[in-house]
Amino acid sequence: MRQIGLAMKTKFSSDFKLAVLGGGQLGKMLLYETRKWDVYTKVLDPSSEAPCRMACNEFVRGDLNDYDTVMNFASDADVVTIEIEHVNVQALRDLKAAGKAVHPDPEMLAVIKNKARQKELYQKNQLPTASFEVFTNVAEAKKAVEDGRFYLPCVWKSAEGGYDGKGVKMIRAIADLDFETHSECLLEEKVDFAHEIGVIVATRADQKQTAVYPPVEMDFHPEANLVEYVISPANLTEDQYSEAQTIAQNVAQTMGSTGLLAVELFLGKDGHLYVNEVAPRPHNSGHLTIENNYTNQFEQHLRAILNLPLGSTEEKTAGVMVNLVGAEGENGPVEYKHIEKALEMPGVTPHIYGKAETRPWRKMGHVTIIGPDREEAMRKAVIAKDIIRVQRR
Amino acid sequence: MRQIGLAMKTKFSSDFKLAVLGGGQLGKMLLYETRKWDVYTKVLDPSSEAPCRMACNEFVRGDLNDYDTVMNFASDADVVTIEIEHVNVQALRDLKAAGKAVHPDPEMLAVIKNKARQKELYQKNQLPTASFEVFTNVAEAKKAVEDGRFYLPCVWKSAEGGYDGKGVKMIRAIADLDFETHSECLLEEKVDFAHEIGVIVATRADQKQTAVYPPVEMDFHPEANLVEYVISPANLTEDQYSEAQTIAQNVAQTMGSTGLLAVELFLGKDGHLYVNEVAPRPHNSGHLTIENNYTNQFEQHLRAILNLPLGSTEEKTAGVMVNLVGAEGENGPVEYKHIEKALEMPGVTPHIYGKAETRPWRKMGHVTIIGPDREEAMRKAVIAKDIIRVQRR
Repeated sequence: MRQIGLAMKTKFSSDFKLAVLGGGQLGKMLLYETRKWDVYTKVLDPSSEAPCRMACNEFVRGDLNDYDTVMNFASDADVVTIEIEHVNVQALRDLKAAGKAVHPDPEMLAVIKNKARQKELYQKNQLPTASFEVFTNVAEAKKAVEDGRFYLPCVWKSAEGGYDGKGVKMIRAIADLDFETHSECLLEEKVDFAHEIGVIVATRADQKQTAVYPPVEMDFHPEANLVEYVISPANLTEDQYSEAQTIAQNVAQTMGSTGLLAVELFLGKDGHLYVNEVAPRPHNSGHLTIENNYTNQFEQHLRAILNLPLGSTEEKTAGVMVNLVGAEGENGPVEYKHIEKALEMPGVTPHIYGKAETRPWRKMGHVTIIGPDREEAMRKAVIAKDIIRVQRR
Repeated sequence: MRQIGLAMKTKFSSDFKLAVLGGGQLGKMLLYETRKWDVYTKVLDPSSEAPCRMACNEFVRGDLNDYDTVMNFASDADVVTIEIEHVNVQALRDLKAAGKAVHPDPEMLAVIKNKARQKELYQKNQLPTASFEVFTNVAEAKKAVEDGRFYLPCVWKSAEGGYDGKGVKMIRAIADLDFETHSECLLEEKVDFAHEIGVIVATRADQKQTAVYPPVEMDFHPEANLVEYVISPANLTEDQYSEAQTIAQNVAQTMGSTGLLAVELFLGKDGHLYVNEVAPRPHNSGHLTIENNYTNQFEQHLRAILNLPLGSTEEKTAGVMVNLVGAEGENGPVEYKHIEKALEMPGVTPHIYGKAETRPWRKMGHVTIIGPDREEAMRKAVIAKDIIRVQRR
């Protein structure tokens, strides 16, 4: 009955309400699309300075992890979605039980929020992933390495709370595990990979249609563990290209995904693909779809969660995305130095997230560079990245 | 000194302020770009329900034609621009005299707002345009027809106040001039045209750089005198294509344009191009640049008026734009019927302006349809136009 109700109610210029948990840059870019379609939105975020503070119909300041705050916030919404995983899942469960459409599904979000449960799901469903073991604390993990159950280097991950490189540690020596933490964690075999691949899968709310984006290549900055370049199309053989899409679609289907699922894969030097992790929302690896693809990831997410037909994922051009992160040693009111120089190159589009203060490695914006082919776009991307400096004013 | 100050002050995430006169759909789409670059904006519009009511930093309700309102509104801005011509020009003159950057220039706006002055400028500068005569009132115009100075059919235009087909009348018989008006007007030879062409020219604030868009074709609805399809690329010979761009650039240069100038031309059945009229702002004929071109017209306008390097105008795909206007006989709260059906076709992007009430022929939104070539895009555009109905809820 709920799905029928959802299908009947008009969503454009109406009293239909979309509630978004989280008001960061992903939410901000989603709001471009809700404005484009005049879909009523309300956004919850702890910061009154959040990038989403404008362009939504209602902005509510509050704790995303507080049950009552989330329940009260979403009580009058028709559809609830997230732009960050760190939200109160029990509230989402109860909102769903109360008849609201919640995307992603709260149970799926619970699995994804815990890297141990996520990896167990891949294993259980024969989805290719690096071998791993789950531990109740880091001392147990250390013992496993001492016992020779893991070759070094391997990767230590906190089961919960990791984000943007936090909660992940490369273990090169046993001593690297000499730190105190009593929460669940895992060790993972380090895949010797050529590069990391991102594939975004969109699934319509009624799960009757999926759309998969062309795989992109993600080049990581060695120090910051942050993506340095996202490149579309990825440098893959035809077989690898379709295998990456197939695996990503299998992950989305296994998880019962609705809306977007961003799947990160390793392309091993052995030529095989391994699922690394997923995010059930628009993703950094999809930002270049704004300029580069027929349907950008934010419009696609909106189509999916509003149960509208999904759009074409086809590429218009070749594209590269560069994150604009705060320069090292710079803290304070932000200035985007030399952005004018980058704008001189054709096909260069900066996106400024609107965060007032810069901090080292903080994601402050991104630049998309498009061109007729990958080489041309990459050539300009390297220059753009080199020119722009995110510093203290 | 002012220009130097403008060049030095950072515009992104800063206290730099852009004032926009008018809060309709053109302003709304400009705000997507100011949000993308986190440029501080304030918008003035008489309606509290204006499409720009969201996504600007400050929304002020007030009369665009009231001198004091405009002066007070823009007093703390660094740059002032318009999204509608019907604003108080004297206020803009005085804001410019007070050291603010005003785009378009108030004197140019004054010329454009008066169709008699506009046509005289074309004539004086040997810019090709249909022959015409200016009259102080309609009775004089009627006498000119009676005296045989104009062949019928010809076109009557009010010098001031025309918009979206208002203030323009096709004169097929002398009796068509039997109406009362004591304001300045003109008669114009009716160009026997194959189609109408639109060319948008961007000029950087310092006038040291211009960028010209590929010509688009504008197909008019015979009844409503509103554009039915805008098609990119226009169906022109190579010579006509470059001639259209050259004429448009000449018009922009002659007028001393800054920011965007949208130039409408007739392609006569004689194969010659004639300037019809211009708009000193983003324009309906440029909406398809959002999906179709490297730099969309709104970002380009922002680049131009902020004195930033202009972007590439190159096309990524072929595109068609269809206006979504209120259906005949429908007045009241709007519903966009069957928009879901249109979304099933690849490359179809609706834009909903967010006006609460529909009225016959009111511009309520538009749909852009892109594809690998003009024929494919046009095929889908005809279907999309046929499917979507803007009606009373």
